[in-house]
Amino acid sequence: MTILASSPLRAHSIGEIALFARAEFEKRIEDARSAMTRYRLDAIVLTSEANIEYLAGFETQFAWNTPSRPWYFVVPRAGSPIAIIPEIGETNWLLTSWCQNIVTWPSPRPHDEGISILTQHLGQVGRSYGRIGFEIGPESRIGMPVSDVFRLQAAIGGEMVDCTLLMAELRVLKSAAEISRIRHICQIAGQTFDDLPSFVNVGDSEREICRKFAADLLLKGADKAPYTSIGSGQGGYDSIIMGPTNRRVAVGDVLMLDTGARYGGYFCDFDRNFSFGRPTDEVLRVNEALWLATEAGIQAARPGRTAADVFTAQATVLSRYGFDIGNVGRFGHGLGKVLTEPPSNAPSDKTVLKPGMVLTIEPSASFGDGRIMAHEEDLVITEDAADLLTPRADREIVVIA
Amino acid sequence: MTILASSPLRAHSIGEIALFARAEFEKRIEDARSAMTRYRLDAIVLTSEANIEYLAGFETQFAWNTPSRPWYFVVPRAGSPIAIIPEIGETNWLLTSWCQNIVTWPSPRPHDEGISILTQHLGQVGRSYGRIGFEIGPESRIGMPVSDVFRLQAAIGGEMVDCTLLMAELRVLKSAAEISRIRHICQIAGQTFDDLPSFVNVGDSEREICRKFAADLLLKGADKAPYTSIGSGQGGYDSIIMGPTNRRVAVGDVLMLDTGARYGGYFCDFDRNFSFGRPTDEVLRVNEALWLATEAGIQAARPGRTAADVFTAQATVLSRYGFDIGNVGRFGHGLGKVLTEPPSNAPSDKTVLKPGMVLTIEPSASFGDGRIMAHEEDLVITEDAADLLTPRADREIVVIA
Repeated sequence: MTILASSPLRAHSIGEIALFARAEFEKRIEDARSAMTRYRLDAIVLTSEANIEYLAGFETQFAWNTPSRPWYFVVPRAGSPIAIIPEIGETNWLLTSWCQNIVTWPSPRPHDEGISILTQHLGQVGRSYGRIGFEIGPESRIGMPVSDVFRLQAAIGGEMVDCTLLMAELRVLKSAAEISRIRHICQIAGQTFDDLPSFVNVGDSEREICRKFAADLLLKGADKAPYTSIGSGQGGYDSIIMGPTNRRVAVGDVLMLDTGARYGGYFCDFDRNFSFGRPTDEVLRVNEALWLATEAGIQAARPGRTAADVFTAQATVLSRYGFDIGNVGRFGHGLGKVLTEPPSNAPSDKTVLKPGMVLTIEPSASFGDGRIMAHEEDLVITEDAADLLTPRADREIVVIA
Repeated sequence: MTILASSPLRAHSIGEIALFARAEFEKRIEDARSAMTRYRLDAIVLTSEANIEYLAGFETQFAWNTPSRPWYFVVPRAGSPIAIIPEIGETNWLLTSWCQNIVTWPSPRPHDEGISILTQHLGQVGRSYGRIGFEIGPESRIGMPVSDVFRLQAAIGGEMVDCTLLMAELRVLKSAAEISRIRHICQIAGQTFDDLPSFVNVGDSEREICRKFAADLLLKGADKAPYTSIGSGQGGYDSIIMGPTNRRVAVGDVLMLDTGARYGGYFCDFDRNFSFGRPTDEVLRVNEALWLATEAGIQAARPGRTAADVFTAQATVLSRYGFDIGNVGRFGHGLGKVLTEPPSNAPSDKTVLKPGMVLTIEPSASFGDGRIMAHEEDLVITEDAADLLTPRADREIVVIA
């Protein structure tokens, strides 16, 4: 792998954003409790990275990289929240979370990974509704073994219902502090995309390009670059979600990189396209249609409109150019602590947009013999026109000579 | 962030390992079917990254970074395996998996994310036992919403039982091709640790160090560096699992970096300690005890001995030095497609070691006022003495002047 002397890999990080204020977490907990009343829940039991970090402020890489030990954060509708966590995590929890109320168990302990403690605490929660919320609904991944879910279900003496939608409802409206983190990581990735022509060369493999791309994101200040998908091919690529292959880029290729990079627990998610040498007329036409579709999506992203409207605005431009809608199923989605969050910019999603929602605008067009191209930008809904969080892509595709 | 002119960030990648042969997957499927007979299962339904990748060869970043869409790989005890996946993943699946038998649905489709297709296919599976395996057991995280597990449970007309243990049993014995990938990523990380003194400086924050460390891993050929924990402090640190903080390293600090980096779907997991300036006598003594405990663990890691024996060998050395066992709960664990896999080197784990098992040897010692230090190496059990996959740490702690 060759890195040029003028490599952006020597670039300086662009600084750190302030930590969340205590008041930010107090408001989140208060909002969660109001929502629990509305959803008729006595408590919620959180097990996933995004939801625990959102309400407790607990920051760790460990818990989410090893499935050996589960981690529980219980927020009752009334009374103190409590963390029920493996003993190994005590220091990490106390140093990063506002919640200092914790119980631990020595883990790994396969026959009882916190379940008896959790059952006992849920037994002490005040019962108004006889319902406890767990992350079991749409787009959820619970952070514990399902066999333990079954055991808890039998033990807690109440109804186990979903709290994924409740949490999504809280998380969909971003605070100013959250938006500044998303904007920060969008700016970092924007700089990496700007510098990319200086460190990617004809002959590089997709794998090499992804590694240099991710390394540059880190050196510019991203905490992590978990998602770096890439597509390359003559006059277009054939997938917008694939990981890197050993294919080497050549003159005549279109290259697309899409990044879900992370800063302070928040993601950016956008892509850029590059042409190695002069693009074909077909590529120019697809690129123009996608750029205009993105413009239309940005224009449509206003309070009172729906996620479906944002889809339709993009689809209308693409149909005018005669392009197939493709198999992606949507033209963008919510974005925040997870790379993809509700809503979906899709015909069936009638979510009404409100100030503070962060969306990707992501039109894709299928053409030719199984080829596809996509554009993507991130924005936040405001009272008026959307506020773009990503530096807007040039209208003309960037050419790497 | 300052990067020296002689920075290892300009280093060249150390090449690529060959793809798995078709025969490797045929053997895995054959072994899975034998295990299904032993466990009395008519089929297994896989949803997690490690297990789908292991049996189907499907490689993707997308599926595991967004929870919007679940992915299913069904292996019946008799008959053809089938992938039931979102339409957006068709190209990615067909280009990376040996299994070309797929069914797709247009996703996101919140009211039916593949569940009706999955139910239908499971209805057609030959029934000998009336039991279907799902990833619900110890240390599992299922890759689908639990509400869909409940729906399936009601629909499939048979017992839903665990297949996590079955899959762990298959995966615990690594093939030569798997071991070469783990060795490869261990060597990459070893080079990064060797070069670390040239790119880490007094005054760097833990966050900056982690970013440079991860970037260097990528540029040397790691695919991903999802886990980069760090500890720093005067004469020792206070956690071996924490993510980076804004703390800046100073003369008199001990710095520990632990990496779960990934190549070709396999992890390394080991750490190194560094002293900024001359280490204290206490640090030297802890370091010596940990190095000797690791030696003892390596010596004990032989076929016929148990994971508990590997724990005891390490603990015996540490007790001789008068150190507390600490709150980690084990002194190493299995390693492979996941950062931590069974077995646990813990008193209660009587797993008998066999050639092909890959283990970490990871003693940790608590001392002073809440301080801890840890060492870690990775090895593979052979017919005779264990084969070290990591370049063995120097006996003396590395000093950064």
